[in-house]
Amino acid sequence: MIYFDNSATTKPKKEVVDTFTKVATEYYGNPSSIHSIGLQAEKLLMQSRKQIATLLGVKDHEIIFTSGGTEGNNMVLKGVASQFQGRGKHIITSAIEHPSVSNACEQLKRDGFEITYLPVDKNGRIHVEDVKKAIRPDTILVSVMHINNEVGTIQPIEEIGKLLANYPRILFHVDHVQGAGKIPLAFHDIPIDFATLSSHKFHGLKGTGAIYIRDGVKLDPLLAGGNQERNIRSGTENVAGIVAMAKALRISMEKLDEKVANMQKIIAYLRNELALIDDVEIHTPIEYTAPHILNFSVLGYKAEVLVHAIANHEVYVSTTSACSSKRNEPCKTLLAMGVDEEHASSSIRISLSFDNTMQEAKEAVEAIKTSIEKLKLAMRR
Amino acid sequence: MIYFDNSATTKPKKEVVDTFTKVATEYYGNPSSIHSIGLQAEKLLMQSRKQIATLLGVKDHEIIFTSGGTEGNNMVLKGVASQFQGRGKHIITSAIEHPSVSNACEQLKRDGFEITYLPVDKNGRIHVEDVKKAIRPDTILVSVMHINNEVGTIQPIEEIGKLLANYPRILFHVDHVQGAGKIPLAFHDIPIDFATLSSHKFHGLKGTGAIYIRDGVKLDPLLAGGNQERNIRSGTENVAGIVAMAKALRISMEKLDEKVANMQKIIAYLRNELALIDDVEIHTPIEYTAPHILNFSVLGYKAEVLVHAIANHEVYVSTTSACSSKRNEPCKTLLAMGVDEEHASSSIRISLSFDNTMQEAKEAVEAIKTSIEKLKLAMRR
Repeated sequence: MIYFDNSATTKPKKEVVDTFTKVATEYYGNPSSIHSIGLQAEKLLMQSRKQIATLLGVKDHEIIFTSGGTEGNNMVLKGVASQFQGRGKHIITSAIEHPSVSNACEQLKRDGFEITYLPVDKNGRIHVEDVKKAIRPDTILVSVMHINNEVGTIQPIEEIGKLLANYPRILFHVDHVQGAGKIPLAFHDIPIDFATLSSHKFHGLKGTGAIYIRDGVKLDPLLAGGNQERNIRSGTENVAGIVAMAKALRISMEKLDEKVANMQKIIAYLRNELALIDDVEIHTPIEYTAPHILNFSVLGYKAEVLVHAIANHEVYVSTTSACSSKRNEPCKTLLAMGVDEEHASSSIRISLSFDNTMQEAKEAVEAIKTSIEKLKLAMRR
Repeated sequence: MIYFDNSATTKPKKEVVDTFTKVATEYYGNPSSIHSIGLQAEKLLMQSRKQIATLLGVKDHEIIFTSGGTEGNNMVLKGVASQFQGRGKHIITSAIEHPSVSNACEQLKRDGFEITYLPVDKNGRIHVEDVKKAIRPDTILVSVMHINNEVGTIQPIEEIGKLLANYPRILFHVDHVQGAGKIPLAFHDIPIDFATLSSHKFHGLKGTGAIYIRDGVKLDPLLAGGNQERNIRSGTENVAGIVAMAKALRISMEKLDEKVANMQKIIAYLRNELALIDDVEIHTPIEYTAPHILNFSVLGYKAEVLVHAIANHEVYVSTTSACSSKRNEPCKTLLAMGVDEEHASSSIRISLSFDNTMQEAKEAVEAIKTSIEKLKLAMRR
């Protein structure tokens, strides 16, 4: 079995699951309780916060735990909108964001917010000049993803951060979900005000995530309640999931350069081999690209049909993002890149984890070739 | 070790943790993925939804998975406010709700909503006549908790439901967090439109919960995104946590009458024994009371000091709710009941699980007695 759908979700590491099990069993207290059962849980929470902050190069209290990427993106978008609407009601984002950003923006529109969706070039990249042009006196937030989840393009986060440093009243949010644990961002240096992480994208567990929120930045809470997490995110913390997330992030970032280099080799191999197949077109650009994502079309075949044909060989890839895959919509990022609807509807995403091997890539290429050949024969009949 | 702080959180059952571990390890797919790894996860999700719906006596699609009680309460309050603000901007709730309801209401006030906080009587119970009196033409929601988390009073949910059946444009939300798995509610018969559940309160895992949402009722999503959970709650589902929650709820509801009867015996014992101690006053009423909560004051002693003194005997109880305990605030529910600040500041909550025994209760009473005696001696010196 070859699992090449790691941008949808990853298999949690055994050590990570073991940690969860141990903490859930032995440290089950509510970290808000004042007795020792609670304090033990709180201590683990503090240690995990410190560990994650250190790994990300930020301060402990700049890490707020959430239930995952969708909550993180919603809490930043809606929290900034609510907190700073007095400053203005204009938000800048891109045309290729994850639905947890774009649909949150669409909700904000009904509350009188205006949203500028920046275009992308043929490589799926937004341009910092377009950000600059879009800035208005009432702009309160720029929200741009780090790595596009469908095509893999890395966005010019540093350049945007540099630009926005000239506009101290505009906050900068980065959806870092596809980047965390793979391509670090220098949150403080860029500078970034908010970043979203999701644990199950780096071999942690579903239902846990975090946001980075820059020291001193305020955010009206999406989840109000018992004032956990510095009043920014209430709700009893998922202590076991959080400790497991800290472990997963540490493991992911060990020997990172080496692992990324290896991944790049595998992706390059896949790109080269797949490009040789008739009717295959590679959409993921060569420059400014994440090491783990490769998007390509096989013209004439519906992506869904191809995914199932390839899965018959126990090779698991995806159509667009997992979130959109059941609606059989063409890949949104490709359409924004100017790819025609036919190509966008036949696009396949391969997404690797650090655990995938060159041998798997070789077998996957064979499986994809065979699948296309079989489909061709079937169509000729 | 005697753990009597089960309203803060419960120890997850071993079977529940085992289920989580198995699912997280073997069924790690994203339920939105269209290949078989995803479909296996989706199947588990469907089975868990069916199991929970059956246990609660509702339809499968009336169950929406969340990250816990705070999210559930926020999503209902804010979602109803957003969805139905065209109808009106008035919400009725009580003075003794969990902060995830009351603080969400306070946020809504800033958006022009008016909130009526109903008073409670000396037993901590709201009166249905007060609900009726509070209803206005612009009322869109009544939100009342089932079982008060600090004192244990059961609210007149059936009567309120019966009243509101005459007002089809007013929705009814019940924070069922302290009741789920212990005191079932007939959601359809009452009728209730929304109810909130949290898994870690019935020996499931932190980070998972659910809301019941009545068939046909709309709710603007708090978490927008990839349109999981019938577009009501986006975000990759915590499949392992959800399967574990289904198991925890099933175990909790097995032989329920028998377990509740046993719990009532233990609580009655604790009530009688503690009432005999000098300076102890029991606040939890005898009628309309949950079987698992007993709140009492020891006049002249700060609750925090007492909790620590009792914990020295490895008996773990709490001050007010876990959420409020670190702020050293007097118990909000007691103040609303008309209890004076001195008593409210010295109040202790015992909260049982079905796993607690009479023997533990006996040992706890001795520990509490000894703790009070020691504190008395210490104060005399």
